[in-house]
Amino acid sequence: MKALRVNDGGVGVEDVPVPEADGEALVRVIKSGICNTDLEIARGYAGFKGTIGHEFVGVVEKCDDSAELIGTRVVGEINAGCGTCEMCLAGDSRHCRTRTVLGIVGRDGAHAEFLRLPSRNLIAVPENVSDEAAVFAEPLAAAYGVADRVDIGPETRVAVIGDGKLGLLCAMTARLRSGSVVLIGKHAEKLAVVGKVGVETFILGKGELPSASFDVVIEASGSESGFSTAIELVRPVGQIVLKSTFHGPASWETSRIVVDEISIVGSRCGRLAPAVELLASNTIRVDDLISDEYELARGVEALKTAGRRGVLKVLLRP
Amino acid sequence: MKALRVNDGGVGVEDVPVPEADGEALVRVIKSGICNTDLEIARGYAGFKGTIGHEFVGVVEKCDDSAELIGTRVVGEINAGCGTCEMCLAGDSRHCRTRTVLGIVGRDGAHAEFLRLPSRNLIAVPENVSDEAAVFAEPLAAAYGVADRVDIGPETRVAVIGDGKLGLLCAMTARLRSGSVVLIGKHAEKLAVVGKVGVETFILGKGELPSASFDVVIEASGSESGFSTAIELVRPVGQIVLKSTFHGPASWETSRIVVDEISIVGSRCGRLAPAVELLASNTIRVDDLISDEYELARGVEALKTAGRRGVLKVLLRP
Repeated sequence: MKALRVNDGGVGVEDVPVPEADGEALVRVIKSGICNTDLEIARGYAGFKGTIGHEFVGVVEKCDDSAELIGTRVVGEINAGCGTCEMCLAGDSRHCRTRTVLGIVGRDGAHAEFLRLPSRNLIAVPENVSDEAAVFAEPLAAAYGVADRVDIGPETRVAVIGDGKLGLLCAMTARLRSGSVVLIGKHAEKLAVVGKVGVETFILGKGELPSASFDVVIEASGSESGFSTAIELVRPVGQIVLKSTFHGPASWETSRIVVDEISIVGSRCGRLAPAVELLASNTIRVDDLISDEYELARGVEALKTAGRRGVLKVLLRP
Repeated sequence: MKALRVNDGGVGVEDVPVPEADGEALVRVIKSGICNTDLEIARGYAGFKGTIGHEFVGVVEKCDDSAELIGTRVVGEINAGCGTCEMCLAGDSRHCRTRTVLGIVGRDGAHAEFLRLPSRNLIAVPENVSDEAAVFAEPLAAAYGVADRVDIGPETRVAVIGDGKLGLLCAMTARLRSGSVVLIGKHAEKLAVVGKVGVETFILGKGELPSASFDVVIEASGSESGFSTAIELVRPVGQIVLKSTFHGPASWETSRIVVDEISIVGSRCGRLAPAVELLASNTIRVDDLISDEYELARGVEALKTAGRRGVLKVLLRP
């Protein structure tokens, strides 16, 4: 089968054997989505080698332990825990220390004709959710999961930094809980996507935002300057959610954090089931977030497109 | 009166007029304590000019609005809020944006014969608390206040980094709530102070601590390396309390924060009343934390002593 793989020579589409189900479910991929993490991994971040990709929708082809899943259209929780450690037993395999992560850590990913995951990781997709929308279940869960880490209520003043895919989804999902969400970015055309759903938008460098005034600031730009802006915008005893990692040393005012008793809260993956529900109920519409779709065979070109300024989600089709 | 003051020329004991009460309380200082923040301010940090010092015990000499306080031995909350803003009305003048802070922001401090504070900031000291112990009310409140920011229960695995005064107090107060507290430092003789009260101790560089295993890590060393150690020690979905600021850029693994969903929680001042109670009930004993006492006239020498390796609290006596 074809798979978009990273190895010592770089990234390319290769022919590899279809994986054995081997006690897990074998899923035929219908569509997969390119995440910024894929671009980072292709650049050598995290040292992952193998098939990349962790956003997908597919159909279960084989499944020894849950035969009733065969033929079901599914999305999947990307963390596969050991099932026996403290974290797994507490129901949070996302933090299992020996977990594998689809297309990120120790497990081949979704930009391929087939993938495998434990059957317990799979969630059926309701019929009214299109394949294109279903691919967003994972990043939407990550954005919606912010509210599992910090309280966002109707009156919470929320700022989101970064108008990439993740920033847009964070703004859209925060808006479901709060009447006061502003998205801060650089691209008017991207900001317009969330303007439609009642998110205020602000173009960096045009005018000024009130400093130290937001209860919650979600940093989704993945840049050190975004983090500095977050520290500037958050109010005393407010919370910064760190949604994207950034590389290299960060100069930051620890005195602001201590003196103003600010919290910085890391947030990674969210729960898939609520995200699928948001899509099924049309509460969140992702149509405007799709920029392009490529055949898997043109995966390298698709990655390049996804990395271009102004481009949102790029899908792959095996 | 004599006062230990920082001005453009450096730090020195000067003769200045006794402050007017002017609607606030005038307090005759009995003893004051030197905090690391005083040393930082003397080095020019925060740009404060005036009398330094914010840890004290004294006797109320004048007090127009609460005459019953006159003659009372008191300690004082160091933040003086405007009384009318959102924060002050919510009862937290520590975060009033126009607050002054005793010996730190816009208000002459405690290393003097007299100081002034709003009468509502003062708390009476029970008779059985010695002057020396009462001086610790403020730093003890800061240490005990960690538990207002993160949950510490009997089973919480707590690590405290830094065996300075604040680190020792953080370890002692954390031990009141948790059966599992380890203090990590460099000085065996300082670590011994908390060994007595059931805190485990660990000398940096001797052996290894289990990485990613502590629920709560309190960084009280004020160094970038302490922060790196904190990131190394905290478990996934654990919390780092940032108790001390440090200067200069910090290289930190944002990926650890995001991927392992760690929180970094700033913590500054605590509430004074519970700290006074801890001293009055002999729950916390601070005798071992006092290294020396100087007359205020020798304040500059006292600051030098306080800055020396291995020295704990240095007191001043007007």
